[in-house]
Amino acid sequence: MPDLSRLALNQITTYRWTMDQAIEGCAARGVGGIGVWRQYLEAYGVGQTARHLKEAGLFTASLCTSAWFNHAGDAEFKAAIDENRRILDDAAAIGAPTLVMVVGGLPPGAKDLAGQRARVRDALHELLDHARATGVRLGLEPLHPMYAGSRSCLNTMAMANDLCDELGEGTAVVADVYHCWWDPEFEAGLRRAGPDRVATFHLCDWREPTRNLCDRAMVGDGVADIGALRRVLDDIGYKGPFELELFSELDWWRRDPDDVLDIGIERCAPYVMR
Amino acid sequence: MPDLSRLALNQITTYRWTMDQAIEGCAARGVGGIGVWRQYLEAYGVGQTARHLKEAGLFTASLCTSAWFNHAGDAEFKAAIDENRRILDDAAAIGAPTLVMVVGGLPPGAKDLAGQRARVRDALHELLDHARATGVRLGLEPLHPMYAGSRSCLNTMAMANDLCDELGEGTAVVADVYHCWWDPEFEAGLRRAGPDRVATFHLCDWREPTRNLCDRAMVGDGVADIGALRRVLDDIGYKGPFELELFSELDWWRRDPDDVLDIGIERCAPYVMR
Repeated sequence: MPDLSRLALNQITTYRWTMDQAIEGCAARGVGGIGVWRQYLEAYGVGQTARHLKEAGLFTASLCTSAWFNHAGDAEFKAAIDENRRILDDAAAIGAPTLVMVVGGLPPGAKDLAGQRARVRDALHELLDHARATGVRLGLEPLHPMYAGSRSCLNTMAMANDLCDELGEGTAVVADVYHCWWDPEFEAGLRRAGPDRVATFHLCDWREPTRNLCDRAMVGDGVADIGALRRVLDDIGYKGPFELELFSELDWWRRDPDDVLDIGIERCAPYVMR
Repeated sequence: MPDLSRLALNQITTYRWTMDQAIEGCAARGVGGIGVWRQYLEAYGVGQTARHLKEAGLFTASLCTSAWFNHAGDAEFKAAIDENRRILDDAAAIGAPTLVMVVGGLPPGAKDLAGQRARVRDALHELLDHARATGVRLGLEPLHPMYAGSRSCLNTMAMANDLCDELGEGTAVVADVYHCWWDPEFEAGLRRAGPDRVATFHLCDWREPTRNLCDRAMVGDGVADIGALRRVLDDIGYKGPFELELFSELDWWRRDPDDVLDIGIERCAPYVMR
């Protein structure tokens, strides 16, 4: 029986499960924790989720995700910052040490990517006090460059590390195999971050051929060298969680979530040992 | 009537045109040059293509592309290097100053991306003498990171510039809006390359939403700030060609190539002036 105490199910993986089903599914299999997504949290309720997680003995790896900052207007932009303050409160209430910051791409009609990146930096500065007050870190997740215009204009470990350097306490990076495997500086970025600044690590894989922009492979089925990444994490002394996180319109989201989690556990086991 | 003397039609844009049709289509519209693709060159013949280009008064912006180096076995890998020597000869014969190096992704079954990048570097070293002898530069084109496993493991301007620094004379970078627009170091990479080391510049755009991995937008229809890139190119003193290059399974490849080129000229005109 593998030790799954560092493994968390990132809830988007079992797309069709409710919060209740995800918690029970993890508890029944000895999976240590859960990466919670907001839509399930809102449907089940923050209080009920917190109680259920505690009863089931699961740790909370993270809360996914922040509200996007891709608003052209100042009022909407400010509202997104306020919404993220509220989300930080929810994260604290369910014991999530990290809010995964998916910051959004370009505002509608915009082409100024550097300008939008600067606006996101400003928004993170605005959020920092509340993050520190709640004890929930802003987990800066670089998303694959193919999402730069849509889901996030934060696209490399180097950018995330630079922001952490600038923002300081209350920030960390969220590292993800699918988003970063291609980056010649990925391993260097993990080393630069160090064990305390890697908030959580997303296990998944890059599928070849990739058919669309929502087509992650199951751990081990793709072309990423996950073993090498685990060795880097051990080398730097990372002790945090590993989350199984699959987005997969054409495959894994169509399967029975029980099967997905069973297969996922089997595939992740070699990479999540203490 | 706009000055189209720096504009080249990259031939993949008019996917269904033969070499003959592409040359005549450019000549009829005053488009200055052509970026030739090998499949059309082979079908029409190297000698006939060279003669026709000369008669039509078109310059050759580049030859696309090199043979990939994604072979696991040493014999096949060596054969790919030999094939690229032959392709360099063809490039010289049609007056192409640059062979666009699309170096391939990972070999089948492989997961060692850093190792494959090192193999590609070795292959480029092997090709360098022949490139210098033919007078055709190895045009190192960073491809978007979403192609790292498939079409090319060379994925950023920084990587291409590093390789040029190492390889020296006989190398240059090929810059492409679609591949590089997201990169926070794209403009810095163009400045680092300088005017003599940017071999050619591909005009295209990043479509939002992007539907698959072959879904470029027409110049101006996407989210890239092409005007800002042109200002950087002017600032560094770039005097080379601009190629209209669209890959588009769902849209532009389905349209009448005459219309695609007409629209492309109209869209590119503001960005290709002397």
